[in-house]
Amino acid sequence: MELHDCLRLRRDTRHFLAEAVPEAALDKAFAAAHHAPSVGLSEPWRFVRVLSADKRAALYQNYCTAAENGDKSSLSPERRALLKSLKLEAIKDAPELIGVFCERPIAGSYTIGVQGTQDALVWSCVCAVQNFWLSLTAQGYSAGWVTILDLSLLSNLLGTSPAWEPLGLLCVGRPADHYGGIPMLEQVGWKTRSAKPVVVQV
Amino acid sequence: MELHDCLRLRRDTRHFLAEAVPEAALDKAFAAAHHAPSVGLSEPWRFVRVLSADKRAALYQNYCTAAENGDKSSLSPERRALLKSLKLEAIKDAPELIGVFCERPIAGSYTIGVQGTQDALVWSCVCAVQNFWLSLTAQGYSAGWVTILDLSLLSNLLGTSPAWEPLGLLCVGRPADHYGGIPMLEQVGWKTRSAKPVVVQV
Repeated sequence: MELHDCLRLRRDTRHFLAEAVPEAALDKAFAAAHHAPSVGLSEPWRFVRVLSADKRAALYQNYCTAAENGDKSSLSPERRALLKSLKLEAIKDAPELIGVFCERPIAGSYTIGVQGTQDALVWSCVCAVQNFWLSLTAQGYSAGWVTILDLSLLSNLLGTSPAWEPLGLLCVGRPADHYGGIPMLEQVGWKTRSAKPVVVQV
Repeated sequence: MELHDCLRLRRDTRHFLAEAVPEAALDKAFAAAHHAPSVGLSEPWRFVRVLSADKRAALYQNYCTAAENGDKSSLSPERRALLKSLKLEAIKDAPELIGVFCERPIAGSYTIGVQGTQDALVWSCVCAVQNFWLSLTAQGYSAGWVTILDLSLLSNLLGTSPAWEPLGLLCVGRPADHYGGIPMLEQVGWKTRSAKPVVVQV
């Protein structure tokens, strides 16, 4: 798929068909992720494929609690009702569920580029997620990135190293809905995208 | 350009030709950035195109100080000499210099998806940077993302709102070097990429 078409067609997907994602498609998407830029060639991205139904159920519970706990006091009753009606994740029903983590280099080692901020390591992982997402899109699949979570519990829930910093969950599969070619939050009237990015000159 | 070719060919570029980047190419890359996923449709990315030679000089000075100040005590004398020989940015010589910022939504407003971490806003901006970079690559240009900076000074140096959180600088132009098709840090023997990403199953 041509790059700019892919950028335009990529959606944050929360509705998936039940069909399994072929291993070859996942492998290709992980390889795409691995082509992301990484600060100082640190390659800090770590992916956790959740196969355990129990772990998946625990992650869904984590999501439900986080969604419930969010402070919605600034929303009108109408907006609150709209929010409640929205499907914002597919943790239970996506064919694949993948945790994303950032492993920072060993303390005391030197990494080029993290002197301004250690967060540059997380940003590298985010670029890997975006590559993964785009590759899935080009292959006819999609992802939804779930961050409505108590991230501090993710390592424990998945049994991963506490040194891996959790960046959320990716729900992955074949889209059951393309939301009319626009973001679902725009389709349902939650928010409208702006026509152009803010670019100022100095 | 086909997506996966683009992902593979994208490089962190520090060597640029002097030729100007056409406005149409920049516009297309900014439009690509604007197609990034954003948490709660927040579109928090802000770009600052640096046209002022004085501001560019001040940014270069900021880089030099940050590069000088980094603790290199864990490096051997040989590694330190190699590091010193590397060109890690193109702040002075890239045809375009662009600051990247994240503007968080107004305090008290509700944004879907930031309940787990407000950093999800920054991650949206990082996706926009990756889209921008890929679009430039597909158009025959490239970028280098500079984070060796005292980021806390960037808003002041560029005269931007202190509410915009700085994520570094993008040096943009036509590449003068493709580093043999691999990351420059690998080409010069600083570090070698791993063959595959870490993917564990649980």
